[in-house]
Amino acid sequence: MDQIRLLFLGTGAALPSPRRMLPALALILDGQVALFDCSEGTQMRMQQAGLSPARIRHIFISHLHGDHLFGLPGLITSQHLLKRSEPLYIFGPVELDLFLQTVHQVTQHQASFPVVVVPCTPQAEQIWTLEGFSVQSLPLDHGPACFGYRFIEHDRPGKFDADRARDLGVPNNDLRTALIHGETVEWNGRRIRPEEVVGPAQRGRTIAYCTDTRPCENVRILARDADVLVHESTFHPDQEMLAQETGHSTSRQAAESAVAAGCRQLYLYHISGRQDDQSEMEMLESARSIFPATEMPQDYDCYSVLVREPL
Amino acid sequence: MDQIRLLFLGTGAALPSPRRMLPALALILDGQVALFDCSEGTQMRMQQAGLSPARIRHIFISHLHGDHLFGLPGLITSQHLLKRSEPLYIFGPVELDLFLQTVHQVTQHQASFPVVVVPCTPQAEQIWTLEGFSVQSLPLDHGPACFGYRFIEHDRPGKFDADRARDLGVPNNDLRTALIHGETVEWNGRRIRPEEVVGPAQRGRTIAYCTDTRPCENVRILARDADVLVHESTFHPDQEMLAQETGHSTSRQAAESAVAAGCRQLYLYHISGRQDDQSEMEMLESARSIFPATEMPQDYDCYSVLVREPL
Repeated sequence: MDQIRLLFLGTGAALPSPRRMLPALALILDGQVALFDCSEGTQMRMQQAGLSPARIRHIFISHLHGDHLFGLPGLITSQHLLKRSEPLYIFGPVELDLFLQTVHQVTQHQASFPVVVVPCTPQAEQIWTLEGFSVQSLPLDHGPACFGYRFIEHDRPGKFDADRARDLGVPNNDLRTALIHGETVEWNGRRIRPEEVVGPAQRGRTIAYCTDTRPCENVRILARDADVLVHESTFHPDQEMLAQETGHSTSRQAAESAVAAGCRQLYLYHISGRQDDQSEMEMLESARSIFPATEMPQDYDCYSVLVREPL
Repeated sequence: MDQIRLLFLGTGAALPSPRRMLPALALILDGQVALFDCSEGTQMRMQQAGLSPARIRHIFISHLHGDHLFGLPGLITSQHLLKRSEPLYIFGPVELDLFLQTVHQVTQHQASFPVVVVPCTPQAEQIWTLEGFSVQSLPLDHGPACFGYRFIEHDRPGKFDADRARDLGVPNNDLRTALIHGETVEWNGRRIRPEEVVGPAQRGRTIAYCTDTRPCENVRILARDADVLVHESTFHPDQEMLAQETGHSTSRQAAESAVAAGCRQLYLYHISGRQDDQSEMEMLESARSIFPATEMPQDYDCYSVLVREPL
């Protein structure tokens, strides 16, 4: 099974700081990159990390606050200059289209490739089936229209062992198809079970990306049984009232959502620049006291998403 | 006289590279900052250089290609978050207003301070008299509407030496005013020349900022007798045809404009990412063979603009 890696290109919030740049997360799967949010400087940090912007096929924008958005025009321009030809799909609030159209109008610059804006609707769940994975979106509770995403790697059927099938004398016809689909067959008076010729199916991994938001039901739906939850953690548990007022979460609330959703790993993300070493350590500890499998990545940290046990 | 410093925040072109980030130049004068162009990442590089974005009062945008523009929304947002209250004046092509209005509309974010867009007109020279300096704009020859700027520090009258005047017995009346204005006066039967009580006038410095452009007459007007010319130098002299086709200059052409304008110092700027160490060295040498006082700054290089001899 292919590796899935999460490369944290920026882990801060609102104001860039030397500690943490503004939010962007690259999900690297099978040679392609899905980008979640695109703050100012994302393309530079990708370059710094040795990740070509040309590999991005899909971009998922949570909402249209500048710290999640303002790297998009430069990224598209650079892809144009790098002679991209394949389409780029950008998911997010519907006003993304006006933003990008105005950028194109004002800069008199038309990308050499199709830029397809796919609007998320605040009314309902949406699921898009893409190449090798699906993505589900649901509105979060931030203030302006803001969407969380659930990235779902497709399950893969077990690998058919042609050598073993030949040794068992299974002919190359409908019997093989039946075995691949999990049926037991009879051939030459012998019962052949699918597991004799088909390897274990591989279970797809799921990654939930939830920022910016107060704790809410849709976070728990998006992160249900997920391998990874990347959740905003703007504030310290002592700042819960501030978080509530501004449409954000504390580290403790992020951990509570991870527990409620039954996910496996939590990454605290979108850390306010008001935090220092001490308060960040306290935030991490408060989350781990509730959900031990918690990390608070730094910019440029990269994590593999482990393959789950076979189905 | 106050120091004027030029801090090169980005010296590259079009595509960011580890060698050179996209163009932006901070002119630091008397505690305030005038910014020339604002590429993606400018606010981060200011922060890196220890220069607060709050000190920017005026921004001069040459043209609306992304590599000169895309740092502007993030910079304005950060100034808002830093509780700026004083107006920010942004000069440049008229479509800047549509760009910023759309950004505000889409992000649902209204700055806490007035953002005043002052359009440059392509029809004529414009001169704005600001606090302590004036700025002149003229259209350049790039393709889309593009403006060069001449920053003109105001001359300062010589300092009146009150002690010396008292020693000479000059009363505190119209005679002093006349002396300050350069007139010789008579008092108690003695002729008093102005230079006896007034120090030398201080000549304002001028800095011309010309990017992106082919060689043209307006560059020579903007840079006439200037202390400093910051001029684009996208291409190597061997790429002159490419420069002509794409609306740019070679290093040699930049040096020829510096000679024609009679300026004192040339900084080569907006260097294409296609150049490497060898070609950059050749570009610099080709310019110096024509105009010896040439430098090719790196990102974060900072230069003082020397005070000129008294008037």
